[in-house]
Amino acid sequence: MNQKKVAIIGGGVIGGGWLARFLLNGWDVNLYDPDPEAERKISEVLANARHALPMLYEMALPAEGRLNHCATLEKAVRGVAYIQESVPERLDLKQKVFADIQVHCPTEAVLASSTSGFKPSELQQSSQRPEQIMVCHPFNPVYLLPLVELVPSKTTQDAQIARAKDILTSVGFYPLHVQKEIDAHIADRLLEAVWREGLWLIKDGIANTEEIDNAIRYGFGLRWAQMGLFETYRIAGGEAGMAHFIAQFGPALKWPWTKLMDVPELTDDLVNAIADQSDAQSGALSIRALERVRDNNLVAVMRALKQQDSAAGQLINAHEKSMRQLARPSQKMQTIQRNVPVDWTDYNGHMNESRYGQVFSDAADAVLTSLGMNEAYVSAGHSYFTVETNIKYLEETYASEDIVVNTELLLAEGKKLKLAHQMKRVSDGTLLATCDQFLLHVSLETRSSCVPLSPVADAIRILAQ
Amino acid sequence: MNQKKVAIIGGGVIGGGWLARFLLNGWDVNLYDPDPEAERKISEVLANARHALPMLYEMALPAEGRLNHCATLEKAVRGVAYIQESVPERLDLKQKVFADIQVHCPTEAVLASSTSGFKPSELQQSSQRPEQIMVCHPFNPVYLLPLVELVPSKTTQDAQIARAKDILTSVGFYPLHVQKEIDAHIADRLLEAVWREGLWLIKDGIANTEEIDNAIRYGFGLRWAQMGLFETYRIAGGEAGMAHFIAQFGPALKWPWTKLMDVPELTDDLVNAIADQSDAQSGALSIRALERVRDNNLVAVMRALKQQDSAAGQLINAHEKSMRQLARPSQKMQTIQRNVPVDWTDYNGHMNESRYGQVFSDAADAVLTSLGMNEAYVSAGHSYFTVETNIKYLEETYASEDIVVNTELLLAEGKKLKLAHQMKRVSDGTLLATCDQFLLHVSLETRSSCVPLSPVADAIRILAQ
Repeated sequence: MNQKKVAIIGGGVIGGGWLARFLLNGWDVNLYDPDPEAERKISEVLANARHALPMLYEMALPAEGRLNHCATLEKAVRGVAYIQESVPERLDLKQKVFADIQVHCPTEAVLASSTSGFKPSELQQSSQRPEQIMVCHPFNPVYLLPLVELVPSKTTQDAQIARAKDILTSVGFYPLHVQKEIDAHIADRLLEAVWREGLWLIKDGIANTEEIDNAIRYGFGLRWAQMGLFETYRIAGGEAGMAHFIAQFGPALKWPWTKLMDVPELTDDLVNAIADQSDAQSGALSIRALERVRDNNLVAVMRALKQQDSAAGQLINAHEKSMRQLARPSQKMQTIQRNVPVDWTDYNGHMNESRYGQVFSDAADAVLTSLGMNEAYVSAGHSYFTVETNIKYLEETYASEDIVVNTELLLAEGKKLKLAHQMKRVSDGTLLATCDQFLLHVSLETRSSCVPLSPVADAIRILAQ
Repeated sequence: MNQKKVAIIGGGVIGGGWLARFLLNGWDVNLYDPDPEAERKISEVLANARHALPMLYEMALPAEGRLNHCATLEKAVRGVAYIQESVPERLDLKQKVFADIQVHCPTEAVLASSTSGFKPSELQQSSQRPEQIMVCHPFNPVYLLPLVELVPSKTTQDAQIARAKDILTSVGFYPLHVQKEIDAHIADRLLEAVWREGLWLIKDGIANTEEIDNAIRYGFGLRWAQMGLFETYRIAGGEAGMAHFIAQFGPALKWPWTKLMDVPELTDDLVNAIADQSDAQSGALSIRALERVRDNNLVAVMRALKQQDSAAGQLINAHEKSMRQLARPSQKMQTIQRNVPVDWTDYNGHMNESRYGQVFSDAADAVLTSLGMNEAYVSAGHSYFTVETNIKYLEETYASEDIVVNTELLLAEGKKLKLAHQMKRVSDGTLLATCDQFLLHVSLETRSSCVPLSPVADAIRILAQ
């Protein structure tokens, strides 16, 4: 079994998203999809993913894996560590696909379905090895959103669940272990409830699609990007506590909002009304353009949460940390290798000058980390502060480009540290900018300069020899 | 009637949020709340708002208005332009308060209720001037979230609605005009649906509060911070269109998910189970601490959307533009006056060096704008690129501090521009950093330097004289 090889069965929007997430995290991917359009569809999802996913990180992702289009299911699943099924949402079809997969795949491979509606026990019904099967339900865009609902049945093996969690976490997902199987799992039940209520609002002429969307994204949608329903209400309840809040809020559920309980009939008129409203709201942009807007927004929002080390951003930081390899200190070292994210460009269409400063600030941090200045050292009360920088901007840099910084230690003596950085474009080696930096070691208590302590002082002494 | 004076009737979490939003946008505020705890509660909300709201902007907000604690309702509402009622959610109480207000307030003042459940026609029932009354329903935290559901009845005057929209927009809200009144308006109907489904998931042991919250904030919550339900599904539907998507997705609503249609009984056991789960999830932080986390996250997320000029961020940009006064070009000018946002600090607890660079980059933009380099000039194909910067970091700066930059034009000759910036802390005038910048005028087509055109060339010539 190849530990970093995955089989993607079904290559639509969801299968393509799975494929992109694994590939960009350095996994080899076997794709099986008999649809003649599969290659085109996959390449479109992959182009979006290559644009967006690397921007979430302050470092380069591993080298991309190899994508193999397989002519048969057998070739796709043989010897892989993980198999993700994303075929159309029909139970008989999925059961047939799982049976075929199990004829050829390793018994210890994770075998997961993207189904949004079916329970794992239903998928297992006619299986030879039901204990291998579980649901791993992702969210679109799969290459960006961290949530995967991991739903085992009572029959699914614990070892399989543990393996699935490890693999999903290693490619940046957050596997949410659903304790008890249920139709539509968790998130889609919440979404269904909102969708049903939205249909009523439209049918009754209270609001159109754009008004409903604005009611979401200018209000509770902003809250839900970082806290969910219960934590938000916990705050609303104040110091009196959650039980008090529910006691107060609960009765409202019994008010005569009968429409909330029933499903409107999907007449042609209603379907057309919604489609027309959606055209008026978003028709000026193609789906591809809307996808790009959505992804740029998600990147910016998730990077913002990352800077706060909170919610989805905390997951990305943990993932980044799990991938980071510490550089060894030396006179000349590569300090930065990364992608230019979309939120770093300005009205001139290129990376803003302040972001060059950010890259060089991060490069200095990489040098300091290599010298042993870690979180413990800073927590104990010492750090380096930058006193002066001089940046020369030689060439423009654009969103989505890969860059590296090579750094030379010009001086490391007592409390002084002088660095010279060179930033280059990876694709053609062009020198983009240079930066000279002068830093002083400080006490975070007195905020005054002082000589470094062990282990930083030791690293500097060893370097000097 | 004082055009920038508002009366806040009821000073809880919601009333306090209204108060803070108006005060920080330069309005004088009359508060009436007979609760002896009102002053303490208001000061807590106001402290949160003063921390968070200024961080959303790349410029200083207007000077704070004056807050008057009024002993009587009469004193509070006399002569004001806008009155916001946020008393407890009881119809008879609200009707009584509106009657009392209308005895003393100007007939042309906007008279709005924060009610989350009642229809404006219900509030108007025993009123002498029903045409003055409407619902303006905000979302917590009111000082940060832009959404206000503006719900008139058929009786509400158009002139009142227009006035309310103007005032709400001027303090950074997005008034969503609800076309037809309905219990609970729009957003709370969607929220109720999710809340009800969440209760079922907990009752049936499918998930606990933390798992439900994670299913939201790691998945569709991130989508909903920037697009709503329908635009997200439009993308999911792909090129086949919205009608096709609904036709495909619609039948799922009729699957046997009977729990979605019914309300669970709120037994003591269920209430306690939810309260215990919420304690386990968030009990380590006080409500005040949770509020600070929430607000920092919202600031960071909304600033991220702002950088993309999208969703809630587009609203903030429009608001900022409406407040901006263009500087007149001169040899020495104040180019920046702003707050240091929470996403600009690093592990040393102070503003990161790269953000000094960002402030000076923005200062250069202010000079260029004063010289006539506006969006039209850039769109037509010319701009300035920074070639070199030298920054000296003299003192530390912290989140939430106000800073100014004064800029001197050292040289404006042909395609060359040399600027010298000084950044100071507003509170004590401390010089924080200096920056020398060298810029070249360029053609955005050839990306090569060239002499500026009119009106920039004219402005430079006039300055030289």
